[in-house]
Order: sequence, then structure tokens, then C-alpha cells
Amino acid sequence: MNETRPMSAPRRPPADEQPPWAKRVGIRITLLTPERVEGELIARDELGNGYGILHGGAIMTFADNLAGTATTANLPDHQTTTTIESKTNFFAAIPVGETARGECVPLHRGRTTMVWQSRITRGDGRLAAIVIHTQMVIPARG
Amino acid sequence: MNETRPMSAPRRPPADEQPPWAKRVGIRITLLTPERVEGELIARDELGNGYGILHGGAIMTFADNLAGTATTANLPDHQTTTTIESKTNFFAAIPVGETARGECVPLHRGRTTMVWQSRITRGDGRLAAIVIHTQMVIPARG
Amino acid sequence: MNETRPMSAPRRPPADEQPPWAKRVGIRITLLTPERVEGELIARDELGNGYGILHGGAIMTFADNLAGTATTANLPDHQTTTTIESKTNFFAAIPVGETARGECVPLHRGRTTMVWQSRITRGDGRLAAIVIHTQMVIPARG
Amino acid sequence: MNETRPMSAPRRPPADEQPPWAKRVGIRITLLTPERVEGELIARDELGNGYGILHGGAIMTFADNLAGTATTANLPDHQTTTTIESKTNFFAAIPVGETARGECVPLHRGRTTMVWQSRITRGDGRLAAIVIHTQMVIPARG
Repeated sequence: MNETRPMSAPRRPPADEQPPWAKRVGIRITLLTPERVEGELIARDELGNGYGILHGGAIMTFADNLAGTATTANLPDHQTTTTIESKTNFFAAIPVGETARGECVPLHRGRTTMVWQSRITRGDGRLAAIVIHTQMVIPARG
Repeated sequence: MNETRPMSAPRRPPADEQPPWAKRVGIRITLLTPERVEGELIARDELGNGYGILHGGAIMTFADNLAGTATTANLPDHQTTTTIESKTNFFAAIPVGETARGECVPLHRGRTTMVWQSRITRGDGRLAAIVIHTQMVIPARG
Repeated sequence: MNETRPMSAPRRPPADEQPPWAKRVGIRITLLTPERVEGELIARDELGNGYGILHGGAIMTFADNLAGTATTANLPDHQTTTTIESKTNFFAAIPVGETARGECVPLHRGRTTMVWQSRITRGDGRLAAIVIHTQMVIPARG
Repeated sequence: MNETRPMSAPRRPPADEQPPWAKRVGIRITLLTPERVEGELIARDELGNGYGILHGGAIMTFADNLAGTATTANLPDHQTTTTIESKTNFFAAIPVGETARGECVPLHRGRTTMVWQSRITRGDGRLAAIVIHTQMVIPARG
């Protein structure tokens, strides 16, 4: 929500510059266009949920970051975005050691909101999760 | 999904033993009962989204972990759980440096699924996010 | 989405005037304040799903209408609203013949969006469904 | 939820027999296969929301019915289904007078749950709404 963003927010980074937490998780953007963003996440041991599979929170972080990156790639420099809601369905576990792949495509790109769909697949190509994200477009101030 | 869980899954840890990724993120469980789970997450620099606020993925990881912990606290030792879907609404940003607090309460506790609602608040008590989670109950095998 | 609303849209009706489809379904508003809207829906035979219970679509129509009514009750005359997304969890069936009751309360009331939560209960007081709705606030035009 | 379904539930109707409420709304199934269900809904005046456009509740009823029909088409005679949750994103209004078209395809077809995605388009082919539905498979009793 724009009204709650700290006033000291730094200038918006470019779309291909990933935020600290995305880097720490290990998310890597492999394709960045306004119509499609792709990425990879290696399911390292530390990302596990205690059953030898990738933690759902890591999957949602991966997808959320794809959608934020994709929205930013559609905005002029003086606009930013924030996720206002997202919905995840999980279909199959991703074993630790595999590489998760994600692709994010637009469902709607309006002036006020953009809605994206991310598909996360595992090593064997099986669909692991689908996420639909609504991103608010935050206009320039001043 | 039970059909995709690795066959080598270790015995289920107790509800109060947090998974590797939850520990790495820094989630701390402060209350654990079958009717209510509470926790804390300090919004450290590394959990930021590049605008000086807590990354949405970290918030969803926090909430997802509360719901998994809460479900496990309602299951006998031979049953486990997996999140099949969750929905997050974000209302207010949590500045880096603050402590996010989360509480998770049941909406439905059935034999097949449990549905939980997590509320994440920030330092000033304002509601930052609400998450509704559906957890599948995975019966014993063998 | 405002950009797709027909240009011939009539002047906004007052919050207590229900739309044609809500009236046809049989939704009745029993309390209307900016902080809380309540309503009733009798589960008539024609609203059934073929198993003797209220159709999920009727429940979602009921809830959607509560959220639209509640948003309108918070807007000045020259602003309208549209639902941009909603999420429903169903917990218990409502048998045909019973009266469903709904209550809708705010989770967030901002200038751009409002988010509401509707609880639908059945005759015995059991929670039948929860819906979270995001309503876009559509500003006046020029 | 199976535990709350009335004991007097009639034998499951075949997938191509639509429930009372779907018929009353005017939903027409135009393609019915286990891999894909399609349908149509004419946006009659009575289905309007007071602004000359199709009520969101009618759209969700349409989609919910597609998903129920699709699940039933994948089940043996002695099994039934119920929607446990669904998520709708609305992108564009459907003016009264147009014909809405819907298509529903599977995201996951498991033994316990099936997850479907419905796309609702308006007369000009523009995407009006997307719905993701989780259907519980209810096993035979007795």
C-alpha cells in the first residue's frame, strides 16, 4: 500500500536488480521481458521443510519475486509496485537437490493493477505450483 | 500431495521442531497450542525487498510455517500435513528493523483438511497481512 | 476495471438499493453500516445444487453482494466500486430450506482498494463459508 | 465437506445433468469431456449488477458449475465432489446482452482433490475472469 511505504524508500532499482531477500534465497532470473519472466531456484538443503522437500514459503518467495520483477519491467522509472494479494495452489512436492523453474506471464496489465500467473515446475517438468498475483501500480509522487 | 512425497521422508518431527528453512528465516514460535499458534519474525536487513520493507515472500513463509505447525499440533504422530493452497492479502508494509508478529487460528479442523487463518501484524499493531491456508491431512501408510 | 465499464453506466444507486441479480437471488440486507453489513438468504429449492444443498455459486453471489454493498456504504456519491478478486473457502453445506446468514466486516479501507471478509453461517450457527473480497474504488470522472 | 452432506442426498446425477440453480441461471454446457468443459451464459437483464454489466456472482456461479461438471466427468458413478475453495480474479466487465463463454481445464487430477482453472471471456474475446477451483473427491460410503 503506497500510504504505508516508508518515506525514505530509495529510488526504484531496475527490474533486473533483484532485492536482497531474493538474492539470499538464491533466485536467479533467466529471462526478463515485459511479456514473460523466467527464473530458477536450486532446492538447497537449507530451503527444505524437514521432509526432504522444498518449503512452500520458498516457492511463494520465488513466485512473488517473479511477479514483482515482471511488473517492474512494465513500468516507467518513476513508478513502483507492491503485491496486494496472491493465491498459491500446490500440486507436487519439489525434492531437495532439484532445480525449480518458474515462468510468469501476464493475465492483465492495466494502469492501476497488473495480474500475473506464475507456474513453478520441478526437475521432471511436472507442475509443482501455480500462483496468481495482483500487483498494485504505485504512481509517482510529488 | 501425498502421492508425490518422497518415499524416503523421515519420521515426522514434533510440532515444536521447526523445519530448516523456518529456522534460517528466523521464525520463532512463541505459543503452541492446538487452538492457536503465535510467532515472531524480526525483519532483518537480509529479509528486505529493496525498498526498506519486509519481502512479501518472507511474510508468506512466516504464515505458512505457522499453519503447518498448527496443523501438526492437531495430528497424531503417524499423520503429516502439506499445504494445498493459500491466499494472502497484504495491507501494510513492515519496515526493516521491526518485529512482525503472527497468530494462526483454525477456521475448520476436519479429518481430511484443516483450514487456518494467520494474521501478521507489525510493530505498531497494524494488520500487515492475512493468510488463509488449506492443509491436507496425510494419513499413515503401510 | 474502470477502463472497461460501459460509458453508459447509470448513476450509482444508493448502498441500500440492491442490484437486480441480488434481488432475484433473494438476498436481503438486514444491517447496513459502514463498519458492518449483514444479510440473509433463504435456501430455496431453486438455489439447490442437486444434492439438496445450497449451490456454491449462490453463496458466492450472496457474499459478493455483501462486500459491494459494504464498500458503497463507505463511498461518496460520485464514486463506485467493482470487485477485482475474491477467495472463498467452503466448510459446511447449507441444506435447502435453511436460512443462510452473512456478515461482512472490513479488513482494510484505503483510498484505492477496500478489502472485506464475509462469514456465511447456516441455521445451526455453523460456519459454512468465508470469503475475502478486494474491491477497487473507482474515482469520479471528469 | 462429506461429513456435513445431508444423509438423504440423492444418487449422483450424471455429469451432463445440470443442477437446478445452474439451469435457473441459464448456464448451458456446450462441450463435456474429462479434459475440458465449455459452456455459455447469456448476460440477461436479470443477471445484471445495476450498472448494466453481469453480476460477479453470476460469473462465479457459471465458473463453479463448470468445475463441478468437469470433476464429475472424471469420477466413477459412486463418487461425488464438492468445491472446497475457489479464487476469482476479475479483469473486464461483461455488458448485459452479451454471451459469456467459459472453458474449464484441469491443473491437477488426483485421488483426493482435483484443481481446475476456468477462463470466462466476453463477446469480443477479451478475458473477463479467471477462477481456480479445488474440488474434493468424496469417496463412496458404506
